[in-house]
Amino acid sequence: MQRILSCQLPAHVGQRVTIAGWIHRRRLLKSVAFLILRDRSGLAQVVVSQPSLRAAVQALGEEYVVEVEGTVVANETAPAGVEVTEPTVRVLSEAEPPPFDLYRPTLTATLPTLLDHAQVSLRHPARQAAFRLGAAAVRGFRSTLDAAGFTEVHTPKIVASATESGATVFGLDYFGDRAFLAQSPQFYKQTLVGVFERVYEVGPVFRAEPHDTIRHLAQYTSLDVELGFIRDHRDVMAVLRDVVAGMLEACAPLYPDVPVVPAEVPSIDFPDALVIAGAPPDEPDLAPAHERALGEWARREHGSEFLFVTGYPMVKRPFYTHPDPARPAYSNGFDLLFRGLELVTGGQRLHRYADYVAALAAAGQPTAPYQSYLDTFRHGMPPHGGFAIGLERFLMRLLEVGNIREVTIFPRDLHRLTP
Amino acid sequence: MQRILSCQLPAHVGQRVTIAGWIHRRRLLKSVAFLILRDRSGLAQVVVSQPSLRAAVQALGEEYVVEVEGTVVANETAPAGVEVTEPTVRVLSEAEPPPFDLYRPTLTATLPTLLDHAQVSLRHPARQAAFRLGAAAVRGFRSTLDAAGFTEVHTPKIVASATESGATVFGLDYFGDRAFLAQSPQFYKQTLVGVFERVYEVGPVFRAEPHDTIRHLAQYTSLDVELGFIRDHRDVMAVLRDVVAGMLEACAPLYPDVPVVPAEVPSIDFPDALVIAGAPPDEPDLAPAHERALGEWARREHGSEFLFVTGYPMVKRPFYTHPDPARPAYSNGFDLLFRGLELVTGGQRLHRYADYVAALAAAGQPTAPYQSYLDTFRHGMPPHGGFAIGLERFLMRLLEVGNIREVTIFPRDLHRLTP
Repeated sequence: MQRILSCQLPAHVGQRVTIAGWIHRRRLLKSVAFLILRDRSGLAQVVVSQPSLRAAVQALGEEYVVEVEGTVVANETAPAGVEVTEPTVRVLSEAEPPPFDLYRPTLTATLPTLLDHAQVSLRHPARQAAFRLGAAAVRGFRSTLDAAGFTEVHTPKIVASATESGATVFGLDYFGDRAFLAQSPQFYKQTLVGVFERVYEVGPVFRAEPHDTIRHLAQYTSLDVELGFIRDHRDVMAVLRDVVAGMLEACAPLYPDVPVVPAEVPSIDFPDALVIAGAPPDEPDLAPAHERALGEWARREHGSEFLFVTGYPMVKRPFYTHPDPARPAYSNGFDLLFRGLELVTGGQRLHRYADYVAALAAAGQPTAPYQSYLDTFRHGMPPHGGFAIGLERFLMRLLEVGNIREVTIFPRDLHRLTP
Repeated sequence: MQRILSCQLPAHVGQRVTIAGWIHRRRLLKSVAFLILRDRSGLAQVVVSQPSLRAAVQALGEEYVVEVEGTVVANETAPAGVEVTEPTVRVLSEAEPPPFDLYRPTLTATLPTLLDHAQVSLRHPARQAAFRLGAAAVRGFRSTLDAAGFTEVHTPKIVASATESGATVFGLDYFGDRAFLAQSPQFYKQTLVGVFERVYEVGPVFRAEPHDTIRHLAQYTSLDVELGFIRDHRDVMAVLRDVVAGMLEACAPLYPDVPVVPAEVPSIDFPDALVIAGAPPDEPDLAPAHERALGEWARREHGSEFLFVTGYPMVKRPFYTHPDPARPAYSNGFDLLFRGLELVTGGQRLHRYADYVAALAAAGQPTAPYQSYLDTFRHGMPPHGGFAIGLERFLMRLLEVGNIREVTIFPRDLHRLTP
């Protein structure tokens, strides 16, 4: 008999059906046993009242994988108003007792224990839900960009030189040559603006992050966007606004608390942001406390959970950042704050070869390690810009969890290389 | 004035418009100049007949990035039946002469030269088209699986032990520990069947491939699928059939020669395949000549470009392969041949812990390096299976190009780490 999902049971009341999944919980009462079966669509209650099955049900444990054939009966007190009665139960796989109870509303083990046993802890409905939300967000990311004429690309993760700075890069031996894991697809996505005008990539990036913090990982999923033929960074911000709205729209069916992205996200210039945040006027960047103050201001003054800060000082932005032509000490770079936390960084990039050579010289950096990248700009590049969203950080902030590892399937950090 | 794309020109005849892009070709005649402008939608012809612009047009070179304002005029002999006249031309970026002519129908430089200058050669319309086709194929892959209840996942690319065999793996230092670049997400996608039942991943995989061949890369894009609660490999083959059909359907608007995937792809059992291929009955695998013979047979007998071969001998499949219960020397593994070439490998996997322990013992392998993976099977796993499609190999075979590097954006191989 064709298996149906637990969420389909209400449409089959009175019928004989087959469901399959994991035993989420087993409760043995005196004359009846309840099996809560978990499948990818949710939970189903199976009532075992046949004395002949008593011994078999006693032998079952939580996380056993079973196939159940039974009759669907309406029962107001059961999940979704139905339960499965008169079952036959076939064991597909046995299981050792899980290291923590998956059936409790919240996992009670410590985070390290949950991560050590991620194979099992990820099965908890609340944890599953976070990753389904992540998948939906990425789907919304792509569909927004596909509709706007972007091309998806896949770029090398093994590169000849470090993208941003050598400090936090993983090195490896590449057939006898020294190579690195890409910290970002920045250079490639810019180069590909020369090919496709508008590109995006969803892929892993690697940081040999020596700090043990709640928001740093050695590998994360970067959602990268770059587009050409912009006037300046404001065209990039408009795309970012639509992308975040598209991500959240895709999340909405799964998550009731999706925030609204205003059609016009409020925007504040960096020197004004310092004033509002009560920071000294010569600060080159925003500290977390400043960002929180700005988040409160945006909510109070604009009723918005989102705020753009534009015009960051050039001194704190990477060498490929385009300056504001009207005041060259400030950049055409921006951050998007969400609830008083930086969610996205982006901006306009330089697009002329001579400007790159000058920028590297001003930064005291040699051009040789960047030659392959710089060659792109010898061959005609339009004004362009882009941004990157860290998927796990997006989820962390949307779900307001305390540690990025809670929203990372198998996190990699200073101390963790398995599972 | 808002920029429009070259493909939108026919809707603007008689109007003044702005287009922007690269100078694909510049032709100076005695009293008139033609600029062919390339943007992401195609080519547009600009006619410069004003004597006052003569010097400015002479200064332009191919691959300059320009913005052109002009009047759209119908002209049967121009591309798409329109051209832009009475232009003003604004240079956005200058460019050095490209190392080869991008305007010729075919790039004439050698493959190494094209790859050395990938920043420029990728701009050629025919090369662009291949990668747009790749993006469409991946879109079709995802949409087919999204509709079938699959969850997209992102798994670690830095792992503690080699997945399949140690021979072709990149090693790296991970905060003082020895680590490896993942050769495939095989173990993780299986583990995640325990969480989501049905998962897929699109991501890079890494092979320290010491051979310099037309079809091997050190990094490629793997389209990985795994699903639980299968009867056996035939359920996996049914999903694969739909996935390949979905990929080709998404490609169809861009590529006229998309092959038809039969609703029921013909399938042949391994021993029968040996007979048809004229191979000795004790061969444990199919050689390329055998696959070609089978491809011809499938076309002749079934009118199909696709053929499943099932029941490969266990001896040639990885240790996690599920045997055929009726004849344990043969597997529930399959290949999908496309035009007589292996396109996809897949199969049913073991799902019980004891079976893994026995399989590793039979293969003479220790369990310790696999412990984190094996732990998954201690905790209840359904019967499951899956497959992996190499995106670049899919494109290579669809477009029938001679070298996989022609359909890889920035290939990585034994000799190539840049651009």
